[in-house]
Amino acid sequence: MRQFDEDLELLKQTLLKMAAKSEAMIEICIQALVQRDLAIAGTIMDQEEEVNKLQLDIDDRSFKLLALRQPMAHDLRFIIAAMKISLDLERIADQAVNIWENTKELLHFPELKPLIDIPRMAEIAKGMVRESLDALVELDAAKARQIVLRDDEVDALKDQVFRELLTYMISDPKTIHVGLELILVARHLERIADHATNICEDVVYLVEAKDIRHHAEEGKV
Amino acid sequence: MRQFDEDLELLKQTLLKMAAKSEAMIEICIQALVQRDLAIAGTIMDQEEEVNKLQLDIDDRSFKLLALRQPMAHDLRFIIAAMKISLDLERIADQAVNIWENTKELLHFPELKPLIDIPRMAEIAKGMVRESLDALVELDAAKARQIVLRDDEVDALKDQVFRELLTYMISDPKTIHVGLELILVARHLERIADHATNICEDVVYLVEAKDIRHHAEEGKV
Repeated sequence: MRQFDEDLELLKQTLLKMAAKSEAMIEICIQALVQRDLAIAGTIMDQEEEVNKLQLDIDDRSFKLLALRQPMAHDLRFIIAAMKISLDLERIADQAVNIWENTKELLHFPELKPLIDIPRMAEIAKGMVRESLDALVELDAAKARQIVLRDDEVDALKDQVFRELLTYMISDPKTIHVGLELILVARHLERIADHATNICEDVVYLVEAKDIRHHAEEGKV
Repeated sequence: MRQFDEDLELLKQTLLKMAAKSEAMIEICIQALVQRDLAIAGTIMDQEEEVNKLQLDIDDRSFKLLALRQPMAHDLRFIIAAMKISLDLERIADQAVNIWENTKELLHFPELKPLIDIPRMAEIAKGMVRESLDALVELDAAKARQIVLRDDEVDALKDQVFRELLTYMISDPKTIHVGLELILVARHLERIADHATNICEDVVYLVEAKDIRHHAEEGKV
């Protein structure tokens, strides 16, 4: 294998490692929330630190590859995509930390109701992140396009959570603080799905050399 | 002027145009909120569309410069910074649209109280965006570092808004919906300040070839 191919492979592996860590962070913060047990996500700040380091590592590797190898066409697009995807993964990890902070607040209050829609949102959002990276590895633009469609499902669940909690909050002001934190959790999950959508758009751009964001005209890039 | 320098200058000008539009969007959505007059921000969706187009334009130009010119050192860092900054500016414009949507909801209800902290937050966040681009144009890393410090002020105001609104909501459940929308507005403004912070970090990286995110060791990149 050429050294350059090895470098690109290493960049991809670092991205996959970062994605796996971000997914795990979503999983533990939601488990901590559902089971009302902070200890489940006790390592989340260390994990965020690791994700941040991996992001800098990807930036560093990408810059050196651009500077020293002057890549063309697909390789150039891959490096650009890797830099962008690493930014999205880092922000996904940030959102998991936000959910953890909402959970810390929440646990000062009694349980409002068993959570159903929020864990569902989390499951979909986490699946979107994992599959967006699968689409990257498989260079599968059709898969990436399919994943983007599920963003609507997450948005619909978020609206449902909002309406339901609002009803609780209005009927009993003691639930306002908890309701607010749960609404924020739903928004963080919505953001995670948005970041997964960004990753899918980068995959399509990489594979088809075409930008699907903002309904760009075909073949613009 | 060499063609390449002209291309870089054009990239910078496109970025400044994008920043000016994003700032204007913050201004009109906050004015619409404060004056309770949706018409003030009536063009916001068109403006968002323009910002999206400018972002694609910057991506397109950057990719071509990377592919055709194989830039080195400062020029390479500038192009990478331009791509990242354009992503942040696009998300700032998205946040302005979010505020506009919160405002549409809010106006179904009577005024809760005259807004003081939220316009202050907006003023600081908008100033951070404008000055982060000044720092880019002046290649002034010290200025960029100063701007980052103001993020704490925005965070403190956001917490203050949250606590104040919570008090209203608990004492009068009729204010819950409005209170929620205002809390979300404060969060969107906080995000705008975060994006301005990202831009400042890119400026420092550009000028000093050094990454200040996540407290990276000096001279890492």
